[in-house]
Amino acid sequence: MQYRLIVEYDGTDFHGWQLQPEARTVQGELEAAVMRLFGTHRRVTAAGRTDAGVHAAGQVVCFHAERDLPPPVVRRALNALTGKDLAIRAVDRVDDAFDPRRHAASRRYVYRIWNRRETSPFWRRYSWLVPRDLDVPAMQRAAGQLVGAHDFTSFQGSGCDAEHARRTVLRSELTIEGSLLNYEIEATAFLRHMVRNIIGTLVEVGLGQRAAELAPLLAARDRTLAGATAPAAGLCLVEVRYGREPLTS
Amino acid sequence: MQYRLIVEYDGTDFHGWQLQPEARTVQGELEAAVMRLFGTHRRVTAAGRTDAGVHAAGQVVCFHAERDLPPPVVRRALNALTGKDLAIRAVDRVDDAFDPRRHAASRRYVYRIWNRRETSPFWRRYSWLVPRDLDVPAMQRAAGQLVGAHDFTSFQGSGCDAEHARRTVLRSELTIEGSLLNYEIEATAFLRHMVRNIIGTLVEVGLGQRAAELAPLLAARDRTLAGATAPAAGLCLVEVRYGREPLTS
Repeated sequence: MQYRLIVEYDGTDFHGWQLQPEARTVQGELEAAVMRLFGTHRRVTAAGRTDAGVHAAGQVVCFHAERDLPPPVVRRALNALTGKDLAIRAVDRVDDAFDPRRHAASRRYVYRIWNRRETSPFWRRYSWLVPRDLDVPAMQRAAGQLVGAHDFTSFQGSGCDAEHARRTVLRSELTIEGSLLNYEIEATAFLRHMVRNIIGTLVEVGLGQRAAELAPLLAARDRTLAGATAPAAGLCLVEVRYGREPLTS
Repeated sequence: MQYRLIVEYDGTDFHGWQLQPEARTVQGELEAAVMRLFGTHRRVTAAGRTDAGVHAAGQVVCFHAERDLPPPVVRRALNALTGKDLAIRAVDRVDDAFDPRRHAASRRYVYRIWNRRETSPFWRRYSWLVPRDLDVPAMQRAAGQLVGAHDFTSFQGSGCDAEHARRTVLRSELTIEGSLLNYEIEATAFLRHMVRNIIGTLVEVGLGQRAAELAPLLAARDRTLAGATAPAAGLCLVEVRYGREPLTS
């Protein structure tokens, strides 16, 4: 029996998704809750292994268990057994063969920039403060050029174990919402730090420090030519999409 | 010389606006910062003295000082001298006679209800979790009946030192934004706990525990007949309006 969860978390007080012996992580918190509920230790896997400080509004998490508990009971119990900065929004049962990471058709992230002179008491945990004038139309032009199939080596963080850097971006849009700049990107898959490296580059475009034309940067396939990695706090995994969903049992 | 600040704060870690000897308050934090910047102790006054846990996105704060510092310098210095959960958005100079509380023409508050089964990791500090089905159209009808000049004794918290309970509500609207219910109310002035008592009452309407017709409740002028006081975390002072603004010096 495999359970699938839709999970939200405020990443501020987690050391990322992945299990660590001495630190609080989302995987660790969920495995401890599953252990308490089902009485045996179960490995928990996620669609996207978010880094320290990164948030999720639609992470997909799966685990196997022998016991057949109704999904609403699992949802309520796991919510009661985890911290308030983590919420299990939905639970259902899926086929044992379902793999939340390998079967994902696309992931959607949002990155938020707080573009005012002073920090926001409300958005400081969920945004990157950029207190300078930005040329937003230039950033929007640059963002649009990332749509399509490209080799993203120039935006790939070190320590990324992907076999190749070719990824297909389905959507790449920057919109203004008051003092927030919301960058939305959906792709089949992502490389390590890819969104944060794109943001570092877009902000340099906005500051007039580099051209809005990104084709040469993609073609160069050289990480040292792109912008710095933007802070984790601005990033949120919003949604994971699966093709047709024939796997629910 | 009088300075006027527009201030935002996350009220979670403050014991409200008003100075307390042993607790962290917004007034205390600002007076300490003014003291460090100007070298003398100055009383700081606000348009609205928010309760413990209540937030502000547009609080107006004033203080007098002898020294004539450019407003941008005051803004940056006070931001540097206060916590990250408090931001001074703007500073200007106003006439010495200007009183942020007495001269305010109206105040606008927003109260947020998180209407889902489980808490939100992102909105838990800024909303009240009501995990039950609500009849929103009935709540909207009830909210609309508060517009106009009424005696709000039924919604007045104890310990309120107002001379009378007559207040004019300019706007009273409930809107849906995803899982949030946003209640917006603008009035010439407010009684103690008035918004939170209105929300407690509207939620009872939404649960079918009381009629959407509020006229009898207003007419009764009896606090014991209205709903319970909703939690502080959902409340935010969004804006203070002044008539024509002839007072800027």
